[in-house]
Amino acid sequence: MELWIQENQTENLALKARVKETLFTKKSIYQEIGIFDTEEFGRMLVLDGVFQTSEFEEFVYHEMIVHVPFYTHKNPERVLIIGGGDGGSAREALRHKDVKEVRMVEIDGDVVEACKKYLKQNSIQLIEEDKEPRFTLEIGDGIKHVEETENYYDIIIVDCSDPIGPGEGLFTKKFYQNVLRALREDGIFVQQTESPFYHQELLKRVYKDVSTSFNYANVFLANIPIYPGGLHTFTIGSKKYDPLKFEEILPRVKEDLKYQYYNKDIHKAAFALPQFFKEILDSAAK
Amino acid sequence: MELWIQENQTENLALKARVKETLFTKKSIYQEIGIFDTEEFGRMLVLDGVFQTSEFEEFVYHEMIVHVPFYTHKNPERVLIIGGGDGGSAREALRHKDVKEVRMVEIDGDVVEACKKYLKQNSIQLIEEDKEPRFTLEIGDGIKHVEETENYYDIIIVDCSDPIGPGEGLFTKKFYQNVLRALREDGIFVQQTESPFYHQELLKRVYKDVSTSFNYANVFLANIPIYPGGLHTFTIGSKKYDPLKFEEILPRVKEDLKYQYYNKDIHKAAFALPQFFKEILDSAAK
Repeated sequence: MELWIQENQTENLALKARVKETLFTKKSIYQEIGIFDTEEFGRMLVLDGVFQTSEFEEFVYHEMIVHVPFYTHKNPERVLIIGGGDGGSAREALRHKDVKEVRMVEIDGDVVEACKKYLKQNSIQLIEEDKEPRFTLEIGDGIKHVEETENYYDIIIVDCSDPIGPGEGLFTKKFYQNVLRALREDGIFVQQTESPFYHQELLKRVYKDVSTSFNYANVFLANIPIYPGGLHTFTIGSKKYDPLKFEEILPRVKEDLKYQYYNKDIHKAAFALPQFFKEILDSAAK
Repeated sequence: MELWIQENQTENLALKARVKETLFTKKSIYQEIGIFDTEEFGRMLVLDGVFQTSEFEEFVYHEMIVHVPFYTHKNPERVLIIGGGDGGSAREALRHKDVKEVRMVEIDGDVVEACKKYLKQNSIQLIEEDKEPRFTLEIGDGIKHVEETENYYDIIIVDCSDPIGPGEGLFTKKFYQNVLRALREDGIFVQQTESPFYHQELLKRVYKDVSTSFNYANVFLANIPIYPGGLHTFTIGSKKYDPLKFEEILPRVKEDLKYQYYNKDIHKAAFALPQFFKEILDSAAK
């Protein structure tokens, strides 16, 4: 039997992975959830037909969305993760022993339950949440949580799906201004912001909005093979710390944490942008 | 009508692009050649079912395989391109006005003819070859040409297809030793060497072989959306110039050449390797 899961990455481009076994499917209130055991990527989470994360390569996304803002900050203690229902971002954040509080606000409890059961590599911390007093999971609306919070978090990580469906409100100027208020005076915000090859209009808009809200706005890159084009962006907004001051940032890197993708060279290299993309962002900021 | 071209990137992974029009197909002596006009990538060259190059993203591959070794060298005058039948590498090499000779040895004349006619963005220099006295096209065996050459080239670029079929002999230790002899005493060699996610055994072998032949062996990366995982490697072997001495290399970069992917930051960042891949290469070199 030939069983394949196919993501239509654009109207004219599709990526297909051979499936060993369908482990879980459910229509939640928010989206269609699938977890498939694939030959190429191991277990993979799929939301509304879009490949989200897999055992094969999840380390790239989660190490980069967490460790880059963490080391850019001098001493992050309170961390908010919006989305991130698979648990990978919480897992990486909690590897930092100095962190006092990691709160995850995920809108779709069904994603969390499915990943607890079928995607344990990502969700190990969720499973063991009873043993980790620093971690709080809230099933709820991250947009609302940020609206109601003031001067509290050191880092806010937006680990969301595409800006269609439940993730839509996380890509608005109003949201970024609420994030700004929810952060302490030296706080940092980071968000996954899609592909530099395929989502340039979105990227220009987000970069412009983050630039007008934060003192520092930068985009960094990571190679994520299951995403369109294999190259993905993260947008970082920072109130006080300049994400390009590598001479201050890199000495903070904890060498004893075992990384699979991240290292000091990669941290710095991630901010080097291809010429076409640099020009797009430069024109957006004008 | 739904017409799609599908590459089986591995046995368990496929990338599909919607086709507007099939422009050319032919079985040559060496391979099955196709040129398709696709919605996503514009015109795309496909050899034995493998996506090679397209109008949408060819600049990434061709700028990186040419400009990185060119600036690593102090003053390249004589350049050999093995393969590169689409013409993109020759085009980029000839943008360097100091270069005196660019010889391209491509085994499959049918690829050249097809690209002259249907992939003009890449092959513009081949079309105009009469007007460019620095350029020589030879339809023949690059392996043999290198065997018969001694102490002649400053740069040898191996712009080949996968190590199955006509490209196979270009990934052997014997070939690298012949390349070494064909280069001048400060010569540089560069080759496309597949994906760090999917072709690790090949990469380890090539890196080891190039390390034992050349004083300096390095791998650098580029983001090529039509290749498996979207991340591609190039292996560089250098007799005299250390490719990591960026403080000597980057001042040589010609800012007046118009790049779409390449710039100084990208040049340096391309040598920053993800931790898992760094460890694979380190273990191979031992």
